[in-house]
Order: sequence, then structure tokens, then C-alpha cells
Amino acid sequence: MNYYSEQITNLIAELSSLPGIGSKSAQRLAFHIIGMPIEKVNHLTETITSARQNVRYCKECLTLTDRELCPICASDKRDHSVIMVVESTRDLAAYEKTGKYDGVYHVLHGAISPMLGIGPRDIKLKELMVRLQKEEVKEVIIATNSSVEGEATAMFISKVVKPTGIKCSRIASGVPVGGDLEYIDEVTLLRALEGRTQL
Amino acid sequence: MNYYSEQITNLIAELSSLPGIGSKSAQRLAFHIIGMPIEKVNHLTETITSARQNVRYCKECLTLTDRELCPICASDKRDHSVIMVVESTRDLAAYEKTGKYDGVYHVLHGAISPMLGIGPRDIKLKELMVRLQKEEVKEVIIATNSSVEGEATAMFISKVVKPTGIKCSRIASGVPVGGDLEYIDEVTLLRALEGRTQL
Repeated sequence: MNYYSEQITNLIAELSSLPGIGSKSAQRLAFHIIGMPIEKVNHLTETITSARQNVRYCKECLTLTDRELCPICASDKRDHSVIMVVESTRDLAAYEKTGKYDGVYHVLHGAISPMLGIGPRDIKLKELMVRLQKEEVKEVIIATNSSVEGEATAMFISKVVKPTGIKCSRIASGVPVGGDLEYIDEVTLLRALEGRTQL
Repeated sequence: MNYYSEQITNLIAELSSLPGIGSKSAQRLAFHIIGMPIEKVNHLTETITSARQNVRYCKECLTLTDRELCPICASDKRDHSVIMVVESTRDLAAYEKTGKYDGVYHVLHGAISPMLGIGPRDIKLKELMVRLQKEEVKEVIIATNSSVEGEATAMFISKVVKPTGIKCSRIASGVPVGGDLEYIDEVTLLRALEGRTQL
């Protein structure tokens, strides 16, 4: 790395510390940034700083937003009695893209993972329980990932939600639409079989 | 993209305008940056701004550096009578990594490309000619890429350097070390044949 002068080396090191950016991409990015007009570079750094400073948790669903209450929680058009529990803001966005879900969300910001030492207290589960107590909630839809951590989290949530008497469901697991059975792993195939629906 | 709040959307848009960063990577980066400690974010933006403001062309070889004269041009240990001509600072770094070249460089910042409308005047060729006139140069080694543009640039440089009487050479083109003949294109194979050396 010391084939470049100090400032370039620093920039490359800084960029390659970001996720998904290896040393080659970091070099490419660094030279691109150095060649950008200064106003564009200022715009880039201001956008980064502003997003970091202004983005916070929505006080209801805890998604990342730049307002006190995110647009979904603030909307009258959404059904506030149905809460979909997701692991991250990106998962929330994935469901929003479908355009068909009209309930609200709760973002856990993680999943239970004994391997990584992440327990129920390390994710936003307590906040979910507070919402269930004070709001009129009819259903909790657990939409954590279909990974080991996601499943463990789903199991845990269902155990704590059930005693409240609120309906608790889990999104279906099975063959993705357009998926070719031949290439799908056994666990998914078995899940799809277990979750079969009557025609 | 409007599934996220404005500041997040802006940040994602800004990041995905950088080369090699698609919309998925930009999302991942944006959420990473939002989750970073504020001092680290400030350090990132300051490094970007500082590199952009302080990096300039070396007044001798025109490589990107943060000093008036780059470390290579400023060094007594380098042979200033041999100039290797490269297309970019990254190509210079590639040769520096070998640790075996002890001459100096000249960075063209591009290659002649009639397709893209880049002519000899759009790259730092005039600056090379000025160096050849005022410095005592024994050899010019042309190390532009082995692409159509790189070859065209090499041809052009050799034509303008030859009348000065300075020795002019081109780095060898052929089978890469460790390369399997079976998988190498015909043009490279023919080049390797033409450039064969007596054993």
C-alpha cells in the first residue's frame, strides 16, 4: 500500500475498512474521488455526515428514519393493529416493495444468536412487548429471516407473545417462486412439504 | 428506493453513484455508515476531503501525490535517466510493487482512443516531450496497457521519441507467468511467438 503517497494511502485504508470493499475496489474508489470535482466531493461528505447525524430510530417501530415517527407509523392508512416483526430496516423495505402489506412493523435490529453471544436483551424485543401492552394489537407476524438465528428469534417471540393472547404467525417457508426443485436444498424442500396447503 | 426516509435515500443515491457500487452494496454501506460511531464517520469524511484537497500531480512525473515532488522523483537512489511511461498512477504502483525497477516514471493519465475522442493532446504527452528536452534521458520504456488504446499510445510515443535519438522500448507482451497456453487468446499467443527470445 505504501506505493502511494500518504493521503492516498489513508483514503484507501479508510475506504477498504467499509463492508464489501476490498483493497482493489478501495483503490479504484480513491482515485475516482480524487478525480471528482471538489463540489461533488463536498456533497458526498455532507450527505454522509447529515445522514449519520439525523437518522435515528422511529419511536414506535424503531426503524431507521430521519423523523421522530417514521412515515409508516405516522400514516392513518396503515392498520396499526397488525405488527410485522423484522430483523432490519432493509427487511422492512423488502416487504414495503411488495406494496401489499398494510400493517405496521417492528424492527428488532438483530436476531438472537447464542453463537455470537446475542441474547433476547440485545435486540429490540423489550420495546415490542411494551408496544403489545399499550397498543391494541390483533396480530404479530414474525418475519425474521429463515436462518438459524431468525428461526430461534421467531421461536422466542412466539413464546413470549402467546401468553398475551395476541394472535401470532410466522411467514411461510418453502420453495421460492420460480425456484427449480432440483436446485433447492433438502431442508427447504421438507419445509415446503410440511407447510403444504389444501387446494 | 423511496422505502427509506429521505436522508437514507440520499445517502444510498450518493454512494451508488460511485464506480463499482451497485444499489445493494450502496444500501449495505449506507446502513453501515449510519451505524458507525460519529467520530469514525467524521474521520472518514475528513480523510476524503483532505485527500481530494491535497492530492495533486507531481511536477515532474505527474503521478498523483500529496507533495510537490513525489517520493520517486525526489529520490537520489532512482535512475533519472530512465523514464517508464504508464497510463495511470495505479500502473505505476503495479511496477513499484515488483521492487525491481529503479528508474523514474511519467504518468499519461489516459491513453489515445479515437473511439472515445481522446487524442494525443488529451493525455500528458506534451509534458513528456518537455522532460525529454530538458533532462538527460537515456531510455524511454513504454509501459502502456496491452489494449488497443495502450498499443496506439505506445506507437504514437515511439514515433515522437525516435527523432530525438533517445532509446525507446516497449515492455514485452506474451503469455503471463503461470498462464496455461490452452486458455490464452490467439493474439497473445502470436505476440508471444513474435517476441520469442533466443535461449
